[in-house]
Order: sequence, then structure tokens, then C-alpha cells
Amino acid sequence: MFSLDREFLMLKMASYKLTYFNVTALGEPIRFLLSYLGREFEDYRLSQDQWPSTKPKTPFGKLPVLEIDGKALHQSTSIARYLGKEADLAGSDNWEALQIDMAVDSLHDFRLALVGYFFEQDKAVKEKKRGPLLKDTVPFYLTKFDELVKDNDGYLANGKLSWGDLYFVACSSLINHIIEFDMFDKYENLRTLRDNVHSIPQIKAWVETRPKTPF
Amino acid sequence: MFSLDREFLMLKMASYKLTYFNVTALGEPIRFLLSYLGREFEDYRLSQDQWPSTKPKTPFGKLPVLEIDGKALHQSTSIARYLGKEADLAGSDNWEALQIDMAVDSLHDFRLALVGYFFEQDKAVKEKKRGPLLKDTVPFYLTKFDELVKDNDGYLANGKLSWGDLYFVACSSLINHIIEFDMFDKYENLRTLRDNVHSIPQIKAWVETRPKTPF
Repeated sequence: MFSLDREFLMLKMASYKLTYFNVTALGEPIRFLLSYLGREFEDYRLSQDQWPSTKPKTPFGKLPVLEIDGKALHQSTSIARYLGKEADLAGSDNWEALQIDMAVDSLHDFRLALVGYFFEQDKAVKEKKRGPLLKDTVPFYLTKFDELVKDNDGYLANGKLSWGDLYFVACSSLINHIIEFDMFDKYENLRTLRDNVHSIPQIKAWVETRPKTPF
Repeated sequence: MFSLDREFLMLKMASYKLTYFNVTALGEPIRFLLSYLGREFEDYRLSQDQWPSTKPKTPFGKLPVLEIDGKALHQSTSIARYLGKEADLAGSDNWEALQIDMAVDSLHDFRLALVGYFFEQDKAVKEKKRGPLLKDTVPFYLTKFDELVKDNDGYLANGKLSWGDLYFVACSSLINHIIEFDMFDKYENLRTLRDNVHSIPQIKAWVETRPKTPF
């Protein structure tokens, strides 16, 4: 079993450096998955004034970037799916993997609608977006996700834990911040999902000790 | 080899119905992949006035939807990755799959910047977005993709054909329409990528016979 031992040793010895801002948002799913996997990682949090000089050094001008042994990876979903496979949390066949991917891509549609409002610079435009967002978009998506979790025994897909669940719960701090209420108070199946993820010992430990940030 | 024959027969007999609008855009990567796989599919193209009554019947209020034997799948990237796996175009290990995913997710960042401009209803806002988009965003992304293809021997990732390449070329009609020039005239490595994809006999046949649409 020399090669397996060697692989194990290499995995344990790989160095991980996550570069992101001092918020949860798109960095947090990677922090959740690295914690789940028990990998130590440098959790490097940029200040806003470091961003202009850092941006040109990233693969596509965006964060988060995860360096594994110095190799720079980007795109939070791609990275989370990759780590999810390493953690055996990516479904047991192509069909199951697809169910996870569909849920996560729908979460991104929701997130994009939210951040399109949240980061809107023009106050009049922002106010105009607010009504339809809170009245239509937010209940539409949260109800859909709640039903999905109900149909999947407390998870987003396949009736079992996946990287998609970690992704969703990690992103929920940002979503709750933008919608200005706690989705887990209102949607009981989403609360079950959150509790299922937060009860994983490695996630529990991470959430208890992570830096406190506004979102 | 009875079970293999049986699986083959079932695959051939599965029914595929794609529901999308009468454009390429996010439906086209699925059309490319189904064509690549040699699967016959119903290419159902909605008119705009059918959309309000169809929208509530979709899984998350969006198109495209692909029904496989009546099971409704959504999210074009999730579906394309799934079909890409079926077609053995999804990389030979997790690391290779990650390289494809990163390229496709970056394409979506680019596409979202483009459609955010293209579908802007407020004429003044649209005009304001136009300058930075064409001057900065478009050359930034097209140069990045061109370099990526140069580094990968005519493909987006891993030096070989993947579903990401089909996705990119299928989406390029929309992108060219929005940027108002042909990216393949200006970026020689992207031209190589396009030619590599278009020279696949099944793709060539599809592109030659598909409905002609503005984009």
C-alpha cells in the first residue's frame, strides 16, 4: 500500500492558501470544505486597499483564489466542487452530481439577483430594485429551496449531505445580511439543512472560531 | 455483453426534449452536446408570448429545461457538464475536471457582464455601461481566454477537447452579437478553438442545419 500511504502523506502535506476579503460570501464555502476535510489553510483576508494591487495578479481578476502548493485556482464553485469530490461529497454517480450542480447554480442565480441590488451604487435604482426583490425574488427562491430540502430529507439533493449543502449554508450569512431577516427563522426545512451542516464537528468548530464579520 | 448492449439500447431510446427560446445563447451548448452524443432531441423553441404561461411550470422559473424521459433538468452549465461526462469530455480526473469548470465559470462572469449591458432597459444606463464594457471588460476576458487556449494547444483546458470547448463555441454567437464584432477575427487562438470544435463532424452537421437566428 505504499502508493496510497504516499498519496495520503502528500494530501496532508499540501499547502493551502485562500485569498479573499474579510467576509464570508464566496470565500466561506471553501473555508467550510477545507475545514470539513481537516486541511490546515492560510486564511488570508485582504483589506479593500490591497485589492487594486492584488487584482492583476489573480488568474481572472477575481477572488477568491485558492493556492494549492502554489498553484492558483479560482472560481468558488469550481473549487468547492473539486474539494467536494476530494471529500466524497459530490454524489455517487453523474446523475447525483447533476442534482447537486443544479441546486448550486440556482443558488447563484438567487445570489446574483441579491448582490445586483446590494452593490447598486445609484440610490434611486437600488430603491427601485428593492421592492420586487423582497416581495417576489426572495420568497420565490427561498420557497423553492425549502421545498427541495423537504423533498431531500434535510439536504439539497439526493437525500444526503453534499458539498452543495456546505456551499448553501456557508453563503447564507451573506444572503441573510442582504435580505435583512434570518431565512432560517422563516423556512423550517432550510433550518433543518443549516442544523445538519452546523452539526458536523469540523464545521461546528470552524463556525465557532472563525473571525466575526458583518456578513 | 448483454448489460452493455442493454445500456446502449436504453441510451438510444431515452427521449430528450429541450425547451428554450429561438436563439442560441444558453440553449446552444446543450444542442451541441446532444448532437455530439448523437442523441436525437426535440428542439422546442418557445415564442416570447408563450413564456409567461411556461415559466411557472419550469423547476426554477428559467430556461433552458432539458427533459430526459420526462424528468426536467435545468441550469445549462449543470446539464452541459452532465452530458459532457456522458460523452467522456469532462477530464480524466478531478484536477482536469476543475480546469474545465474554472474556464466555464469565467465565461459566465464574462457573459453576465455582457447581458447586464445588452438587456439593460434604461437607455441612459445602457449607454453608460457601453464604454467600460467594450474598452475594458471585453478585451480583458477575450485576451485571457485567448491565452488560455494558447497554453492548452487549441482548447480551454488540459490540452484536449472538453465540454467546456463546446460550451464556449456554442455561446460565442451570443457574445459576438453583443460585442458587435467577431471575436474569431481578432483572437487567433480562439479561432483555432472554434475551428477545432466546428471540425467535429456532428457539430459541423448541427451548425450547418440548425435554424438561422439573429444570435
